[in-house]
Amino acid sequence: LGTETHSLQDMFGDVKFVCVGGSPWRMKAFTEYIAAELGMEDPKSEYPNICAGTDRYAMYKVGPVLSVSHGMGIPSIAIMLHELIKLLYHAKCTDVTIIRIGTSGGVGLDPGTVVVTKQSVDPTFQPRFEQVILGKTVVRNTDLDQSLAEELLQCSKELSQFKTVVGNTMCTLDFYEGQARLDGAFCSYTEEDKQDYLNKAQEAGVCNIEMESSVFAAMCKLSGLRAAVVCVTLLDRLKGDQLGSSHEVLHSYQQRPQILVGYYIKKQLNAKAKDS
Amino acid sequence: LGTETHSLQDMFGDVKFVCVGGSPWRMKAFTEYIAAELGMEDPKSEYPNICAGTDRYAMYKVGPVLSVSHGMGIPSIAIMLHELIKLLYHAKCTDVTIIRIGTSGGVGLDPGTVVVTKQSVDPTFQPRFEQVILGKTVVRNTDLDQSLAEELLQCSKELSQFKTVVGNTMCTLDFYEGQARLDGAFCSYTEEDKQDYLNKAQEAGVCNIEMESSVFAAMCKLSGLRAAVVCVTLLDRLKGDQLGSSHEVLHSYQQRPQILVGYYIKKQLNAKAKDS
Repeated sequence: LGTETHSLQDMFGDVKFVCVGGSPWRMKAFTEYIAAELGMEDPKSEYPNICAGTDRYAMYKVGPVLSVSHGMGIPSIAIMLHELIKLLYHAKCTDVTIIRIGTSGGVGLDPGTVVVTKQSVDPTFQPRFEQVILGKTVVRNTDLDQSLAEELLQCSKELSQFKTVVGNTMCTLDFYEGQARLDGAFCSYTEEDKQDYLNKAQEAGVCNIEMESSVFAAMCKLSGLRAAVVCVTLLDRLKGDQLGSSHEVLHSYQQRPQILVGYYIKKQLNAKAKDS
Repeated sequence: LGTETHSLQDMFGDVKFVCVGGSPWRMKAFTEYIAAELGMEDPKSEYPNICAGTDRYAMYKVGPVLSVSHGMGIPSIAIMLHELIKLLYHAKCTDVTIIRIGTSGGVGLDPGTVVVTKQSVDPTFQPRFEQVILGKTVVRNTDLDQSLAEELLQCSKELSQFKTVVGNTMCTLDFYEGQARLDGAFCSYTEEDKQDYLNKAQEAGVCNIEMESSVFAAMCKLSGLRAAVVCVTLLDRLKGDQLGSSHEVLHSYQQRPQILVGYYIKKQLNAKAKDS
C-alpha cells in the first residue's frame, strides 16, 4: 500500500474504529463477527487480507471497522502502529477510536474476567513506557482514554454476560522470566520470590499482565487517537503459570473482548445514526 | 506438543541444526531448500507445519534440521526460544547448532552483504542484553560462538557467490525511532542527529541493525547452544531509510543467508559421514 499506488482516502477514509490483536486468525474471526453484528455480511465474499503480500501482519476491513493483527510483544505492535498511524493520516481519517483486544494473565481475578486498562504500568509498576531513541532513554506517558474505558465498562453492564473491571495492566518484554513464571527454560528465582512479586503487583493495582499495552498507549496518545485496551484473563497468575481451563472454555473466554467491543461499536454507530 | 502426549525424543531426538527466522513463509521455503540440498526431498509430501494448531509460530523438520519462525522483535523470539529450548531438552538432543537467518539494515555496507554477528550490541553499542526479572534489571552476555562465525565466513569464501563479513550487530526494540529512521509516524530528531548516531554506530563496529540478536545470543549462551546470527543487509542505512532495490533483487538478497547456512549444514553432515 502506498500513496502513489493506491487512493488511501477512498480505501480507508471512512474508518472510525480500528481493532488490533495479536493473532491474524483472531482478527479475521473478529471481522466476520463484527460484519454479522452490524448486518454488513457479504455472503458472497471472503474478507480479503489487505496485507496479503506479506505474512508479517493481516488486515481486514468491514464498513467503518478496520481489524489488524500485530504479532507478539512491544516491537512487533510498534512497527504495525507506525504504519497504521501513517495510513490513517494519509487516508485523512477523523475521530478514530482504536481498541486492542487480547488475552492476558490475571492477578487475583477469576479466569474469564475482562480487564479494561486504566493505565499501562511497567514491571516496576510505574505508568510509563521507556524507549531508546538515538541511544538515549525517552520516557512516554501510558494513560489511556478514561471516558472510553468507562463507556466500555457500561457496555459490559448492559451486556451482562461476563465480569469486566477497569484496572492497571502490567506490560512486560518477556513472557516467562519477565512475568515471574517458573516454567520457562530458565528460572533464577524461587516460588516465594514469584509470589512476593505478584503480590506487590496486585497491591500496586495491577489487574492483569500482557506484552503490548505500554507502547500501544504511548503511541496512540502521541498521535491523538482515542484508545483502549480490553484483555480477557485466561488464568489467575497468583494460582499458577499454566492454563488450567479446557480448550473450549479458553476459546469462549477469548471471545469476550470481541463481544464487548462489538457491542460498543454497534451502540456508537446506532447513536450516530439517530443523531443524523 | 507435550511430554505426556508425544514422544519428543522419537520426534526430535535426531535434531542437530535449528534454523530460526522471522517469517513463517521464509522458514517453510528454507525447509524446502534444505531438503533439496541434502537430497532428502519427499516429493509426495508437503512439509507439515508441526505447530499447525496455532498461528503464533510455524515449525518444520527435515532430517536433522528443524526450522522455526519467531515473528518480529525480542519478546516474540524469546517466547519461541523458551519453548524450543524446553523441547530440545525433553527430546534429549545433543550437539545442537542454532542459527538465526534474517534481514537487517546495513551500516556502511553495500546492500546484499551478509553479516555474521560477532557480538550483539545494544543501542548504546555495549555488548549486553538487559532484561527485567521480578522488576529488577539483569544484564546478560551477548557473545556468539566465534569458531562458528569463522566457519560460516570460510563457507562464504568457498561458495564465492556474495560478500560476507563478521562484525557487530545492533539490536533494537523499535524499527523506526529505535533505529534512527526519519520515516516513522513520529520523529523527534533531525537528519543530522540521525547521521551522527549512525556514524557513531559504525565507529563502534556496528555492521548491521536488527531486532532479535541480543536475546537470541543471551538465551543460547545460557543454555549452551552453539549459536550464530546470519543476516543479509537490504539497504545501507547511512544512505537512506527505505528499500531502494527492486522486489526481485531483495528476494535474491533474502536467499543469501539460506544459501550460506545450507552450505554449512551440508558440509558438516558430509564431514560427519566421512568420519563414521
